[in-house]
Amino acid sequence: MTFQLARRAERMNPSIIREILKVTERPGVISLAGGLPSPDTFPVEAMREAAQRVLRDSPREALQYAASEGYGPLREWVAASLNAHGLQVDASQVLITTGSQQGLDLAGKVLIDAGSRVAVESPTYLGALQAFAPYEPEFVSIACDDDGPLPDALDAAKGARFFYALPNFQNPSGRCMSEARRAALMAKAQALDLPVIEDNPYGDLWFDAPPPAPLASRWSEGTVYLGSFSKVLAPGLRLGYVVAPKALCPKLLQAKQAADLHTPSFNQRVVYEVIRDGFLRDHVPTIRARYKQRRDAMRAALERHMPAGCRWAVPSGGMFFWIELPAGSDAMALLPKAVERGMAFVPGAAFYADHPRLDTLRLSFVTVPPELIEQGIAALAQTLKEHG
Amino acid sequence: MTFQLARRAERMNPSIIREILKVTERPGVISLAGGLPSPDTFPVEAMREAAQRVLRDSPREALQYAASEGYGPLREWVAASLNAHGLQVDASQVLITTGSQQGLDLAGKVLIDAGSRVAVESPTYLGALQAFAPYEPEFVSIACDDDGPLPDALDAAKGARFFYALPNFQNPSGRCMSEARRAALMAKAQALDLPVIEDNPYGDLWFDAPPPAPLASRWSEGTVYLGSFSKVLAPGLRLGYVVAPKALCPKLLQAKQAADLHTPSFNQRVVYEVIRDGFLRDHVPTIRARYKQRRDAMRAALERHMPAGCRWAVPSGGMFFWIELPAGSDAMALLPKAVERGMAFVPGAAFYADHPRLDTLRLSFVTVPPELIEQGIAALAQTLKEHG
Repeated sequence: MTFQLARRAERMNPSIIREILKVTERPGVISLAGGLPSPDTFPVEAMREAAQRVLRDSPREALQYAASEGYGPLREWVAASLNAHGLQVDASQVLITTGSQQGLDLAGKVLIDAGSRVAVESPTYLGALQAFAPYEPEFVSIACDDDGPLPDALDAAKGARFFYALPNFQNPSGRCMSEARRAALMAKAQALDLPVIEDNPYGDLWFDAPPPAPLASRWSEGTVYLGSFSKVLAPGLRLGYVVAPKALCPKLLQAKQAADLHTPSFNQRVVYEVIRDGFLRDHVPTIRARYKQRRDAMRAALERHMPAGCRWAVPSGGMFFWIELPAGSDAMALLPKAVERGMAFVPGAAFYADHPRLDTLRLSFVTVPPELIEQGIAALAQTLKEHG
Repeated sequence: MTFQLARRAERMNPSIIREILKVTERPGVISLAGGLPSPDTFPVEAMREAAQRVLRDSPREALQYAASEGYGPLREWVAASLNAHGLQVDASQVLITTGSQQGLDLAGKVLIDAGSRVAVESPTYLGALQAFAPYEPEFVSIACDDDGPLPDALDAAKGARFFYALPNFQNPSGRCMSEARRAALMAKAQALDLPVIEDNPYGDLWFDAPPPAPLASRWSEGTVYLGSFSKVLAPGLRLGYVVAPKALCPKLLQAKQAADLHTPSFNQRVVYEVIRDGFLRDHVPTIRARYKQRRDAMRAALERHMPAGCRWAVPSGGMFFWIELPAGSDAMALLPKAVERGMAFVPGAAFYADHPRLDTLRLSFVTVPPELIEQGIAALAQTLKEHG
C-alpha cells in the first residue's frame, strides 16, 4: 500500500459486536445481541411535527453552519435537566456532541498520551475501549462486584489520566452502583486525585426507582459527564453531550471543532423542538414500562429455561442481562451453535480491556418483543444443555 | 486543574477565524469574512418534503443505529457521481462522514504519527491544519503560484505521509489548478510515492467551465478524495464523504466507528431523498449563477475602489477572493480599523502552516448580496487608504 499507517492504527480493530451482528442478522435468528433501542419507542409523530416547525420557522439557521458548542437553547435545557438531578452546572459547560460516542473520542483526544494509563471497569463498554484505544493508553482494569467498582481497587489506578465509569445499568453488566458505593468510590477517586469520566446513557431507563445522584455531583471539579438522547428519543439523530469542569471546556471545544466543526444544527433544533415543553416527562415513562415488561419476560424465561450453574443478577433498569456461565464455558465457541438454534448473543469477552472472562455473555431485552425473548432464551438454554 | 492534558492538546487552538467572527458579528458590520454559503440557496422546500417522506416511509430505519459506512443508496449515489467525473470507484470505497471536516480528522488519525511530515499548500485551508495538528505532524509548506502547487516543490515533501491539496477554487486563494498543472503534480507525487489527500468542497461551484478531472483520477491507488454536500445543499446537515483506495478503507471505517459510530441516519436518508432523482442537476446551476453574479459584483467593486499596489486574481468559481496588499502591510492590524468602518475580512496569515504572509487577506463574495459587497469593498478600500 502506498499509504503508511500511523502507529495508532494498529490499535484500531473492527468491533467484535459488529462482526457478530453481520453473522447473526439473518432472517429467522432472534437476536438478543445488539444494543438497539426498540423502534416502537421512537416518537415519530413528534419528530415529524418538529422537523416541519424547524424548517418553517428557522430554515436558514437550521441548515447553516453553527457554533461548535451547540445550539444555545439545547445547551440550556441540558444544564437545567442535569441540575434537577443534583449537578450544579451552567450551559457554558455543555458541549453538544455527535452522539455520546463522540464525547468519548474527544475526551480521549484531549486527555490520553501514548502510554498514559486509563482505568476502566471490568467488564466495561466496548465502544469506550474503541474510542480510547487509538490514543494508545495502557488500560488498567478495576475489579468490580455486583454493586460496581471496588473503591480500594482504584489504588491500582493512581496516576492514571482518568477512571471511566458507567454507574447506571452498565453496558454490559446491567448493574447500578448503590448510593454507598458511589460515595466511597468518589471519595477514593478524589483522595487519589484521579479524574473520573462518568458515562450515563441509561440513567433514565430505571424500572422501580431512579438511580442515586450522578458521580459528578460528588466531585464536580474532577468529573466529566457524558449524556445522550439515543435511549430516550432515538439514536439515529446522533445527539449527545459532554459536561466538563470549566477549565477543561476550551480544549474539548477545540477538539470538537477539529473533529466535525459542529453537530448538525438541524438535528439539534429538531430535538429541542420535541423536548422543550416537557415531552420527555410523559414519553420516558412509556419506554420504562415497555422495557420493564421485557426485562420481566427475560427474567421469567431465564428462570424457566436456563440450566443449573448459570448465574445472573436482575437489572433494575437499562437494556441488558449479563450471564455468567458455568466455569470452563466458552461463550464465543457457543455462539455459532446458538445461531444454528436460531438465537444470538454477544460473548462477554468483548467487554474486557484485559483478562477477558470467556464464561460470560450479554443479552439485550429491549429489541425484540416478549414472545421472541421467550423463544430466544429457550434456544440459548438448549444450546447450553447440548454444548455447554 | 485536576485533569492532565495530553501533549497533543497543546497543538489545539481556537480558530482565529472563529475569534474574528465573534468580534465582527455585530449589527451593521458587513462581513466578507466567514465562508458561509448563502442561505438563499438552501433548498428548504425540497428538504421539508424529503424529511416528511423519510419519517413517513422509513422512520424506524431513519431513527435507529445504522452502519458506520453510511446509507447504502447514498454511497452508491456518491460513487456514480464521482465516476461521471472521471474516477473509477465503487460504493464500497465510499465512507459517509459527519461533514468533510470529519474526513480530514479521520485521515489524520489513521495516517499521522507524532513527528510525521505532512505537506500542505501555501496558503491552505485552516480547518485542515486544525484537523491534522492534534496528531502532531511537522507541516511542510509547498510553494504555489497562481496555477497551484509547483510540482518541483514537492521534492521537499519526499517521505511525508501525504500531500494535502485543494485543486478547485481553493479556500482561501480561490485558485483552480489547470489541467497541465494537475498532470505534472500527480506525476511528481507518484514518482515520489507521496500519497495525496484531495479535498474538493467547491468543485461544483464553477462559473464558466467545469474544472479538470480530479487529481484522484490520475493516481487512484495513491489518493484519498474528500467531498461534501455543504456547498451544494446545506452545511447544517453535516454530510460529507471520503473515498479511499480499498486497502485503506478498513482503517478509516474503524476510525469512523470509534469517532461517532455513524453519521446521522436521518440526515443521510433525507439528503438521499432530495438528490436521488436528479435534483442537483437543476439546483446547482442556480447556485453557480447566484455566486457568479456576486463574484462579478466583488470584482467590479475591487476594480473601482481598491488603491494601487493591491493585487488579486479573479476566481473562476468557489467563494473567495484572495487579496495581496502592498508589501509591508499587516492585514491583522488593519482588521480592527476595517471593522470600525463597518466591514470585516479574514487576515491571510491564518491560512499558513508556517511563514505566514501578513500582507494578504481573504474576502468571501457569497454570503452578502451585491449592494453590500459594494459597500464593504468601499469601506475596505477607505481603510487601506487611511491606514495601509
